[in-house]
Amino acid sequence: METETNRVEAFSDGVFAIVITILVLELKVPEEQGSALWHGLLEQWPHYAAYLVSFLIIGVMWVNHHTIFSHLKRVDRPLLFLNLMVLMVVSVIPYTTNILAEHLMDGDSANVAAILYSSWTVVYALAFLGFWWYVTKVGHLFHETVDKDGARATRVRFGLGAVAYPLTVILSFFSAPLTLVAHFLIALYYAANQIPIPLVVEEERLETGSDLRK
Amino acid sequence: METETNRVEAFSDGVFAIVITILVLELKVPEEQGSALWHGLLEQWPHYAAYLVSFLIIGVMWVNHHTIFSHLKRVDRPLLFLNLMVLMVVSVIPYTTNILAEHLMDGDSANVAAILYSSWTVVYALAFLGFWWYVTKVGHLFHETVDKDGARATRVRFGLGAVAYPLTVILSFFSAPLTLVAHFLIALYYAANQIPIPLVVEEERLETGSDLRK
Amino acid sequence: METETNRVEAFSDGVFAIVITILVLELKVPEEQGSALWHGLLEQWPHYAAYLVSFLIIGVMWVNHHTIFSHLKRVDRPLLFLNLMVLMVVSVIPYTTNILAEHLMDGDSANVAAILYSSWTVVYALAFLGFWWYVTKVGHLFHETVDKDGARATRVRFGLGAVAYPLTVILSFFSAPLTLVAHFLIALYYAANQIPIPLVVEEERLETGSDLRK
Amino acid sequence: METETNRVEAFSDGVFAIVITILVLELKVPEEQGSALWHGLLEQWPHYAAYLVSFLIIGVMWVNHHTIFSHLKRVDRPLLFLNLMVLMVVSVIPYTTNILAEHLMDGDSANVAAILYSSWTVVYALAFLGFWWYVTKVGHLFHETVDKDGARATRVRFGLGAVAYPLTVILSFFSAPLTLVAHFLIALYYAANQIPIPLVVEEERLETGSDLRK
Repeated sequence: METETNRVEAFSDGVFAIVITILVLELKVPEEQGSALWHGLLEQWPHYAAYLVSFLIIGVMWVNHHTIFSHLKRVDRPLLFLNLMVLMVVSVIPYTTNILAEHLMDGDSANVAAILYSSWTVVYALAFLGFWWYVTKVGHLFHETVDKDGARATRVRFGLGAVAYPLTVILSFFSAPLTLVAHFLIALYYAANQIPIPLVVEEERLETGSDLRK
Repeated sequence: METETNRVEAFSDGVFAIVITILVLELKVPEEQGSALWHGLLEQWPHYAAYLVSFLIIGVMWVNHHTIFSHLKRVDRPLLFLNLMVLMVVSVIPYTTNILAEHLMDGDSANVAAILYSSWTVVYALAFLGFWWYVTKVGHLFHETVDKDGARATRVRFGLGAVAYPLTVILSFFSAPLTLVAHFLIALYYAANQIPIPLVVEEERLETGSDLRK
Repeated sequence: METETNRVEAFSDGVFAIVITILVLELKVPEEQGSALWHGLLEQWPHYAAYLVSFLIIGVMWVNHHTIFSHLKRVDRPLLFLNLMVLMVVSVIPYTTNILAEHLMDGDSANVAAILYSSWTVVYALAFLGFWWYVTKVGHLFHETVDKDGARATRVRFGLGAVAYPLTVILSFFSAPLTLVAHFLIALYYAANQIPIPLVVEEERLETGSDLRK
Repeated sequence: METETNRVEAFSDGVFAIVITILVLELKVPEEQGSALWHGLLEQWPHYAAYLVSFLIIGVMWVNHHTIFSHLKRVDRPLLFLNLMVLMVVSVIPYTTNILAEHLMDGDSANVAAILYSSWTVVYALAFLGFWWYVTKVGHLFHETVDKDGARATRVRFGLGAVAYPLTVILSFFSAPLTLVAHFLIALYYAANQIPIPLVVEEERLETGSDLRK
């Protein structure tokens, strides 16, 4: 059975919003007293850095999720579960973030933590690709305005775009802090650059054709 | 007084989204330093396994909740409270999950934890059956498109489907890890198989008859 | 400036959903090993009882909030802040719940905890009465279907209904467990009985007059 | 690509709702037994005070966010990320709140905590100004009813209004409790006073012209 997208979007928005917000629960109050509190706060910089990067990563994920769903008219049961898989992967990010923040400057364990963090972005990219692969394969879930063949053609570019994530896994063997910087830059890149989903109709028709959109 | 379903759905989506997301709060950063961190992470496998299974269970619950509500046009006061009861049962799952994860490999207490976890799925099944029983009994809350007699007839099959849960309680006396596997398989089964809610009209009419759907 | 109610409802639903769900974070895994885990679980009964009662209380609050907003057409700025005050009071309930659960069987501190818990329900009742007072006073925020004079007349009955809460404060001086039972019964009563908001039009016109409702 | 505002609002509402609600997680049950529990509760007054002030601050932020979005018709990609930045800053407030509450009466560390808390409100004001600056600059995201030139002219007044925040940073060097009081008064002021966004059409037309509003 196919249903409209609004409740899946609401549920997904809820999960994204909670995941991105509970990141802050890992920031703990330093116990230092007096002006040593400054020092205690500064020592937490790996937590701040990891918070910033993961917030940006989850934010970009949400924007992409939002963009894809704005092109969908209906959802079917397989899509509900592919979406659930994406959400499960996203939900684990506060955990990998926390591990990386705890161990960022701790020699060997820093590399272990970075490998885990980076590998999880690969898992996310795969879950998202699976989602997009299914949507473009079945086609009939799109709005009428979407160029289905064009959308299908973006799959290769989506896949190529995801190649940055395995590279961060390799980088993780060498430097955890540099890996975090790499993830920051990748997230910034994806924030600025988006693979457009081709439309068969012009933007203007979309503007007026409110009956085509939810 | 009867009201529309949208706010109940929004509230329920919120609860499901939070419950499924706070599961991750139970994954704690291992304290091992150096390359021993790998070992510390591997030792947490019961937490990962329980996380995966509970995420899937709650996800399937949400999909079923979503499916039933997509056939409802209005809610009345008893339904609000039956729905609240379902949400209360769902909200406890992170607690039973955590108990099972902590004790999964701990001899006697593993069985206790598994019995608790499995019994709670029975409670959930009963709460959900009560909800469905009420909806099909009063009938007038459905969309006009729903075949009310057909919907009523699904109650037996819904009930039979729920028999798997008491069986997991029995299995819990013998092996906690096997019980977790059983719950995983049951959730997968329910993810793939759904008892359809019969409609009086064809799917096509639903497609075009947007006035019949919210 | 007046705006539509949907975003206030969404925000309020979010807060209610989170408050009702994070109650479970206070249920901690018992540390007992072996079959002593049963004992450890049973010893947590005050937490289970407090969880149940607070879940029901917050659930009833949400239903009432939902009912009132289903009669509102627009919100103005004072209402936004009166609503915010209601949400603030609701958000503190997990804290008072936790204090009561921790101390329920602890002699003197049990009474202190019960007084706090009960007093907070008085605060909630006052916040809610203030909200209802304002809505019925200004009147113009209601849907056209609402009988404004009739709605104003319910204020006394609303106020009388709230008298049960101060009584629980008095009861708290004598017995914390009985106070919890009293709150359970009051919540059940409010779940079953609702002061109806009078309408100028018949229910049937509401059914067909979809243009009058959001 | 521009999309409608509803999903951004839903996501933002989710984040605001979670942030404002998890403030309560920092209120811990006092360990005092017997009637000493009263004393334990009273000793937590800095936590209560900080909770109240931060709840009000986040509430006012949400009302402002809500007000601005009620004047927007569409969002574009830069706006999504400017909004994400606002949400990131808001999400950190439970952390700065907790630090201030922990250290409010602790001599030197109280000033450090207050400086941090106040500086973060400056960061928030800047993030919000950036958001408003962009919206008024591009103009085309507004509803047709908004007077774009008038909206642009409010930027100076918005900026002047934000000058109170840097002043609290200075005050933080002298007294942490007074700083908290100042933030309370500022939030109350912003709750009561709002810079209106000018409209080209009269309020009445808005009332009837439902086609102009989402």
